[in-house]
Amino acid sequence: MDTLLLTAPDVRHLAREVGLDALMDALIDRLDEALRAYDADTVETPQRSGFAYAKPYPGLVEWMPCLVRDAHATVKMVGYHPENPGRVGLPTILSTVSAYDTQTGHLRALVDGTLLTALRTGAASAIATRLLAAPGASTLGLLGAGAQAVTQLHAIGRVLDLERVVVYDVDPRAEASFAERVAPFAGALSVEAAPLLDVVAEADVLCTATSIPIGAGPLFPAEAPLREGVHINAVGSDFSGKFELPAALLRRSFVCPDLPGQALREGECQQLRPDEIGPSLHEVAQNADAYAAERARATVFDSTGWALEDYVAMDLFMEYAQALGVGTRVPIEVVPDDALDPYEALHTMALAR
Amino acid sequence: MDTLLLTAPDVRHLAREVGLDALMDALIDRLDEALRAYDADTVETPQRSGFAYAKPYPGLVEWMPCLVRDAHATVKMVGYHPENPGRVGLPTILSTVSAYDTQTGHLRALVDGTLLTALRTGAASAIATRLLAAPGASTLGLLGAGAQAVTQLHAIGRVLDLERVVVYDVDPRAEASFAERVAPFAGALSVEAAPLLDVVAEADVLCTATSIPIGAGPLFPAEAPLREGVHINAVGSDFSGKFELPAALLRRSFVCPDLPGQALREGECQQLRPDEIGPSLHEVAQNADAYAAERARATVFDSTGWALEDYVAMDLFMEYAQALGVGTRVPIEVVPDDALDPYEALHTMALAR
Repeated sequence: MDTLLLTAPDVRHLAREVGLDALMDALIDRLDEALRAYDADTVETPQRSGFAYAKPYPGLVEWMPCLVRDAHATVKMVGYHPENPGRVGLPTILSTVSAYDTQTGHLRALVDGTLLTALRTGAASAIATRLLAAPGASTLGLLGAGAQAVTQLHAIGRVLDLERVVVYDVDPRAEASFAERVAPFAGALSVEAAPLLDVVAEADVLCTATSIPIGAGPLFPAEAPLREGVHINAVGSDFSGKFELPAALLRRSFVCPDLPGQALREGECQQLRPDEIGPSLHEVAQNADAYAAERARATVFDSTGWALEDYVAMDLFMEYAQALGVGTRVPIEVVPDDALDPYEALHTMALAR
Repeated sequence: MDTLLLTAPDVRHLAREVGLDALMDALIDRLDEALRAYDADTVETPQRSGFAYAKPYPGLVEWMPCLVRDAHATVKMVGYHPENPGRVGLPTILSTVSAYDTQTGHLRALVDGTLLTALRTGAASAIATRLLAAPGASTLGLLGAGAQAVTQLHAIGRVLDLERVVVYDVDPRAEASFAERVAPFAGALSVEAAPLLDVVAEADVLCTATSIPIGAGPLFPAEAPLREGVHINAVGSDFSGKFELPAALLRRSFVCPDLPGQALREGECQQLRPDEIGPSLHEVAQNADAYAAERARATVFDSTGWALEDYVAMDLFMEYAQALGVGTRVPIEVVPDDALDPYEALHTMALAR
């Protein structure tokens, strides 16, 4: 009845044992399988919900639950506190994922959610890119060179034969350090900084992963020239009023959200009417041939984050931890010999007082 | 940035160090303070929500979140799987509580929820009893002699000068073992088994904590004689269709729920119209004098379980753990030196592959 803890050192150990590329490949495969197998009777992902507050510092704590029937349930807890980096030197996002055995209710595992989220967000873009990018796409453009850009490049590099990466960030330091941060997996790939409009113009596949403020979008004007058949993974929108792409571009594109309802509330789809939105990623994955012709025009994956992605990543982490003997097992839940006696284990002491 | 884990052995250690009576007294005091200070602008407890399923075994996993503004947030996860005891020898309910720093989103602590829940459910009944029982109440009747009955007796014994306890359970083994299970804190108190209607007739304070099936209530007929001014803590209702008390008794009583909305859905209040329900426990606690006259007639505390109670208990556990140096600290969240680099800690290894 122990709970598997994957602490920060455990997660590093696990990633080191498996290898970053192997981990990303496995996650892309598993997520692809999960999307193709998805049906709403088997998978339940209620709308994410949480607490938002402005004091003492602005932030929110939210939960993203997922149930896969006859398997298990996961809940990702996400803290979003934009003043963390400047105020206390912590990341804006802190996160953990827990998994529950739905035969008994037992807490099976608890793991850091930061690396897991970055990996699964990359994997989702890789799947969308494989389904919707024009054949022969070889230049990846990145708007935003932060943490998410690292896993976007890594994941997309696993499914496309990339030749060139062009990157732009409003923060010159983030832009300058990007090549070094991706060196461990970028190999001989050319990674260059470029002005925003050059990145937009040259990309066969474009990923937007910025923290553009609410109300300040889009990142580039609707008239900016784009490659014919460009595929865009829009990763940054996660708040009402926050978006990255021009509405006119969305209107002329094939727009594929991860979760239509959520995308309408907080994704690029905020700018569209429901009837202007295309099929969800799982529908495209389940009918890839039917949508292959869309590769010829502009396509947008509106990635707002889906609890099923966290579930799949958590499942994979637990499986690797089990296979490799990584992790720490702790008896968190009290299981009395006598279920009728909550004080059982305390009797000796209670009598002594 | 470590997370405090209170594992099963840690919880035992903590309870042993503090002492059961001191722990219950502190919890009753803290919960009483929290109820008297409660206002809806400071405390947010969204309706509990969760996953329910019938296969492979019937059960549910649900979450009970609580935010106290300018303090922290807690989420209790509760698994309810009635086939656990017979099928795998586990308790029906398994539960954990986690606490989040709402300045940063950091997971402060994770602790077993079973003992915590039994304690806080007892503490809530003790507060209701102190507010609503007739003066001089000295006989406690218990319908149901399971785990909840243990903490009901313990908690109520801390606020009333009890002379006698009469107990009934449908399961003769549970009834027979009850005196032994409460011996550590019952002292010289007389604890006797009695037929159901005798328990009902003799109790100055009655606690119902049974697992009566959905649709099978009430536990006793409306005509059963009760002491004048009896106070009832109805603890067992937690499901639509499950209730313990006769509707006619509720109608002639002063009915005080913990959470009116939840009590209407799954408590004794299911049997009442909203206008037949009295003030909430926190309203009575905040205006004790105004409700003192109700002690003369039958009163019912409809206890369905409130996330604020879990919050208060969690807060107390964390405070004791800190003061006594009890618990295990683990670095669950990955905090990179460079927030832009999710793979930071993995670079050395990635380069090596």
